[in-house]
Amino acid sequence: MSTSTLPDGDRRHARREATRKAILEAAESIVLEDGVEALKSKALADRAGISERSLFNHFPNLNEVVLSRITSYLTRLLSEPEIPAGLPISEIPDALDRKFRASFDRPEADHLFNSFLALSLRLDTEMVDLLGRHVVLTLADVSNQIMESTTKNYPDLDFDQNIRVRMYISNLTNGIAFGLLRGIHRMGVLDSPTCGSPEHDGDLSPKSFQGTEALELLNLEFLREDIDWAFEQVAIGRPRI
Amino acid sequence: MSTSTLPDGDRRHARREATRKAILEAAESIVLEDGVEALKSKALADRAGISERSLFNHFPNLNEVVLSRITSYLTRLLSEPEIPAGLPISEIPDALDRKFRASFDRPEADHLFNSFLALSLRLDTEMVDLLGRHVVLTLADVSNQIMESTTKNYPDLDFDQNIRVRMYISNLTNGIAFGLLRGIHRMGVLDSPTCGSPEHDGDLSPKSFQGTEALELLNLEFLREDIDWAFEQVAIGRPRI
Repeated sequence: MSTSTLPDGDRRHARREATRKAILEAAESIVLEDGVEALKSKALADRAGISERSLFNHFPNLNEVVLSRITSYLTRLLSEPEIPAGLPISEIPDALDRKFRASFDRPEADHLFNSFLALSLRLDTEMVDLLGRHVVLTLADVSNQIMESTTKNYPDLDFDQNIRVRMYISNLTNGIAFGLLRGIHRMGVLDSPTCGSPEHDGDLSPKSFQGTEALELLNLEFLREDIDWAFEQVAIGRPRI
Repeated sequence: MSTSTLPDGDRRHARREATRKAILEAAESIVLEDGVEALKSKALADRAGISERSLFNHFPNLNEVVLSRITSYLTRLLSEPEIPAGLPISEIPDALDRKFRASFDRPEADHLFNSFLALSLRLDTEMVDLLGRHVVLTLADVSNQIMESTTKNYPDLDFDQNIRVRMYISNLTNGIAFGLLRGIHRMGVLDSPTCGSPEHDGDLSPKSFQGTEALELLNLEFLREDIDWAFEQVAIGRPRI
């Protein structure tokens, strides 16, 4: 739809969103092509076709641009589908479990996950640390969104049912991070310095993805087992180990 | 111990910590005495006995000072006690459950919670929103600290056991936030505008603590039931509603 048919406020909003999107896309292509060290404000503004001043009207700093782009893939990966409306209340927990698994079955899931991973793998150590905090906040936001759409579809939940459903959503959402951690471990990358690429310094702690070329082979097909395992652990509750 | 007996690096560190502590304490007393609107950089620096420049060497802005102080109470409330070392592995989950409950039984728990609440209740709407994000990150940090001390005491956990224990710790930690939400609801404050104080605007959404004088009556004795309930939900796993 052309923005010229919209009222003024909407048109301004649409233009703002378009600029924001251009910045995010430009940042992604610079980082993927030339690495995160090539992401400078002039290069980014040029690539996005805007002024440097306009760039910093949209984002407080360059780290925020890249981290927003990375976490946007996570949000898109997890926010669809909604659970169906009109189920008996007792079926909501199962529907949530199916909903989370279904997120990873969608045709676009592989692209979203691979894009998330490809950018994450290009971050330096300091940014990986920041990414960790952004991911925690993003998972909390996703969890809140899912809670809100579920509560909207099921306004008859009493307060304790509502909180129990919220806790389950929150624990399933966080479970994805633990599934990812398990998958990375299962690949053997973090424990085995021989997988490190020789041009890096061999720091294979989870703080640094650098030098872990094997991680580029990580994909949803491989991880699926770990994510399902993590959801199962949430369903079990207190672990019996 | 006098700092003059320490090596140079340690002495610098101790001095830095002492200044940081003075800033945090000064900010707390200003906010408690005169409200968050009285927290200006000059007043804060004067009260802490430092220059404004030194203030901003320690904190990027005034919001960070208050939010750091508030979340420090949460960290101190939740980080003790550790679980005992030397248990059979199968008893770790129960020990974690007991550990979380024991945090609230310590003599200092009431003071820590009341201090957390008293400062939180003085925030304006925008800062309450920021506080939410700080609390999410603080709970993630606390959860990581507990995981690390547990892993140190139990190095023989295999990788899946380790992740299951981590997920349980993470879900119990987050459970505290849901217990608090339930307790606030149970007090009836957020649902009943008649509890609002007349000098405020009656916005009783969870986004704003303003006008909810009844919340000042919230204490750990009242909340204990809700926190125990939340831990029980985590132990149950997938809810049966």
